[in-house]
Amino acid sequence: MKNKSITPRDEDFGKWYTDVVQAAHLAAYSNVKGCIVMEPNGYAIWENIQKGLDRMFKETGHQNICMPLLIPENLLRKESDLINGFAPEVAWVTKGGEKELEERMCIRPTSETLFSDYYSTLVKSYRDLPVKYNQWCNVLRWEKETRPFLRGREFLWQEGHTIHETSEEAEQETRQMLAIYRRFFEEYLAIPVITGRKTEKEKFAGAEYTLTVEAMMHSGVSLQSATSHYFGQKFSRAYDIKFLDRNNEWQYAYQTSWGASTRMIGGLIMVHSDDNGLVLPPKIAPQQVVIIPIKESDAVNQYIEPLFEALKASGLTVRVDRSDKSAGFKFAEAEVNGIPVRIEVGDRDLQEGKVTLVRRDTREKINVDKDSDVVSTVLDLLDTIQKDMYLRAKENRDRYTYEAHTFEEVQKIMETHPGFVKAMWCGDEACELKMKEIKGTKSRCILEDAEPIDDKCVVCGKEAKHLVVWDIQY
Amino acid sequence: MKNKSITPRDEDFGKWYTDVVQAAHLAAYSNVKGCIVMEPNGYAIWENIQKGLDRMFKETGHQNICMPLLIPENLLRKESDLINGFAPEVAWVTKGGEKELEERMCIRPTSETLFSDYYSTLVKSYRDLPVKYNQWCNVLRWEKETRPFLRGREFLWQEGHTIHETSEEAEQETRQMLAIYRRFFEEYLAIPVITGRKTEKEKFAGAEYTLTVEAMMHSGVSLQSATSHYFGQKFSRAYDIKFLDRNNEWQYAYQTSWGASTRMIGGLIMVHSDDNGLVLPPKIAPQQVVIIPIKESDAVNQYIEPLFEALKASGLTVRVDRSDKSAGFKFAEAEVNGIPVRIEVGDRDLQEGKVTLVRRDTREKINVDKDSDVVSTVLDLLDTIQKDMYLRAKENRDRYTYEAHTFEEVQKIMETHPGFVKAMWCGDEACELKMKEIKGTKSRCILEDAEPIDDKCVVCGKEAKHLVVWDIQY
Repeated sequence: MKNKSITPRDEDFGKWYTDVVQAAHLAAYSNVKGCIVMEPNGYAIWENIQKGLDRMFKETGHQNICMPLLIPENLLRKESDLINGFAPEVAWVTKGGEKELEERMCIRPTSETLFSDYYSTLVKSYRDLPVKYNQWCNVLRWEKETRPFLRGREFLWQEGHTIHETSEEAEQETRQMLAIYRRFFEEYLAIPVITGRKTEKEKFAGAEYTLTVEAMMHSGVSLQSATSHYFGQKFSRAYDIKFLDRNNEWQYAYQTSWGASTRMIGGLIMVHSDDNGLVLPPKIAPQQVVIIPIKESDAVNQYIEPLFEALKASGLTVRVDRSDKSAGFKFAEAEVNGIPVRIEVGDRDLQEGKVTLVRRDTREKINVDKDSDVVSTVLDLLDTIQKDMYLRAKENRDRYTYEAHTFEEVQKIMETHPGFVKAMWCGDEACELKMKEIKGTKSRCILEDAEPIDDKCVVCGKEAKHLVVWDIQY
Repeated sequence: MKNKSITPRDEDFGKWYTDVVQAAHLAAYSNVKGCIVMEPNGYAIWENIQKGLDRMFKETGHQNICMPLLIPENLLRKESDLINGFAPEVAWVTKGGEKELEERMCIRPTSETLFSDYYSTLVKSYRDLPVKYNQWCNVLRWEKETRPFLRGREFLWQEGHTIHETSEEAEQETRQMLAIYRRFFEEYLAIPVITGRKTEKEKFAGAEYTLTVEAMMHSGVSLQSATSHYFGQKFSRAYDIKFLDRNNEWQYAYQTSWGASTRMIGGLIMVHSDDNGLVLPPKIAPQQVVIIPIKESDAVNQYIEPLFEALKASGLTVRVDRSDKSAGFKFAEAEVNGIPVRIEVGDRDLQEGKVTLVRRDTREKINVDKDSDVVSTVLDLLDTIQKDMYLRAKENRDRYTYEAHTFEEVQKIMETHPGFVKAMWCGDEACELKMKEIKGTKSRCILEDAEPIDDKCVVCGKEAKHLVVWDIQY
């Protein structure tokens, strides 16, 4: 049985993606150009992502705060790299009520300026450091394209901003947050990732360097999934974040920022889902189990009730689908919505002493003795699904990870099946730009501690400096 | 011992309020005019409020979604009462990047328009109803004044928006949400409230009627704390939210909305706090217990460690203050931050076989046998504090609740000590406006099922229609 509202993934990956988003009711296009409505199924995934990441942030000593939405122009202009990077794509508020504003304000595209301005008033002594704050909020960038969760004018994200006494401590924070993102992607989202440093061209405007989490989608194309930036003293000099150090001398603080957004939901879809709709890892699925009575009867209801209660008591999110739709319709709905395990309970099966568990990821049916410990079986199965989803994603990633030694090899790979191409690079931006001619191939990241695989740049043939992963991106 | 950074409450209530906000690090004024920074201590209270309310919303079948931040002008203009109510106080985005927009957009002051527009595409049949969605977000209104949590350009809130098949069901929802707010205020925030209907003059722009939760602050002044609106078919006609009913005929849906904001934090402060800083009810306090070693020693540390672990294991949020400040300083800090219970552990006390618990609300010291079940004692004490705080707030409210039969009586009350004044009203707006001459006294709400206390309007002396509660407001 095939879901007819979804274009096959291998036929048209882009169309398949938007079909899944709509069929699973994750988001709808809104009449506000460039903006989406995150619908309940999509927002519930975001709530689970928030819960997981927020706990990891708090365990490492971060606290949440809330900064203003608007940035006055003069505040934005204090750091020139940032304004050059963002000015072309911000929305400007020029009128408040009936009155023209004396100074226009932009809607935050990111909040380095606001945090820096606040930190400059907060910190006086090394005793006040470190300050490790995060906020969950909406940001706006005046994009032309709209692809739900991947690109659009408004999105939700978290942005952490920290200041430290020493560069060592700030750099340590930058790396720690990268490691947290990596762990979250691997353990919760079941997405294997590579991490490394962005090139100068690809780094965040204003950062000394940017570390990045890169994930490969099922199609082989990359998605930049989270970033962690080290700013050194750049913003603290521009915004005057000074403190008295241990020698009673004024110093500028060392700063970081790090963020991940609702784009993670796009990644989840493009890594795991299939032609029947959404597939979600159990740890992030808003609903983990659905029980479907094939036809309601006394025997079926008597079986379902205690099972439902026991599953709920074990900490799972579970629902009984008692709607008046047909069983087949309910199965398809559970599939398209990506519920990891469905339990089918029917009269005939019960008479034969069994119930059926169905895995969403493999669509495998498993018969279980109706009087066995079904809760334990379900718990184990969810664990297995979580692990298997990671392994399958990793297998796909490994299959489309290549090494290339010549420009022609890169061309051939990208024309056959794109993926992570490891190739040496001399460090010149000209070579990076040349690479872009191959269907827009970009550097994903520099693998910092990797063994070189060649001594020549894959583009110009001159001496190579870095092993770089290249790919087409979303 | 008196906190010197805080103006006494009885000396200047307004100044006391902002002193507490700053001394407890709940919020800071920002360089963005009219906006505040919600600092960690303030934001953590908001997180707990969200957790409590969100659970109640979900238990009653509501789901969260996320709507766009911006509203195109034509969408806003579809419902004329709403635009008349809000247009003077919205922020307009007129430029995106370098380009002038063809149609300006405002930053949402509230989202009835966006929800209505979305619902018009979502609903086709009575089978699709009810739709019960909520969102947690920021909104912006171009206010002139800034008082942290009470008034300002940007604030955080939740706004629920539902549509229903019948007016009965929608009205039932309007009342249900009012009841949920009431329960949350009483059980979590320890704030006794009155509920009732707003007058025509005070109702929400575009609503058929508005139900309201009104709380009395320690000073006797009122705070409108949450509202629940019934719209009938007003928005569904303006935005074309139609469905095929059970007779296969097109009908307009019946609609509600309801909201509560970070203003609740302002209410919490003004009801419970004192001259030593913040006082928080245990159910909403981000940190419920702090253990303070009077001086660190082996004996003290050996006692503290297992106690800390046991308190944590019992589900409490607890911290040991091991900073290098003096014990006195730590006590004051725990007080100003409103931590409901602090446990003082010192060598001499331990030798005498005891530790000291200190209640934040009453500042009472309680000696406890060091080998007794301290965790149970703390849990009981937190329960007692929660109840006592509610009772004290109720006592204050009852003390300043009056009945008045003449305009002069109202005047005298408001000049002596403001509070909830129950008085009869004829229903004419002219009388409502006359009341405003008494230090800005406004109708808080109409008590719908109350026994009349007179047959004449307190202002004009004509026939009375409603028993109304009047007060000065924040």
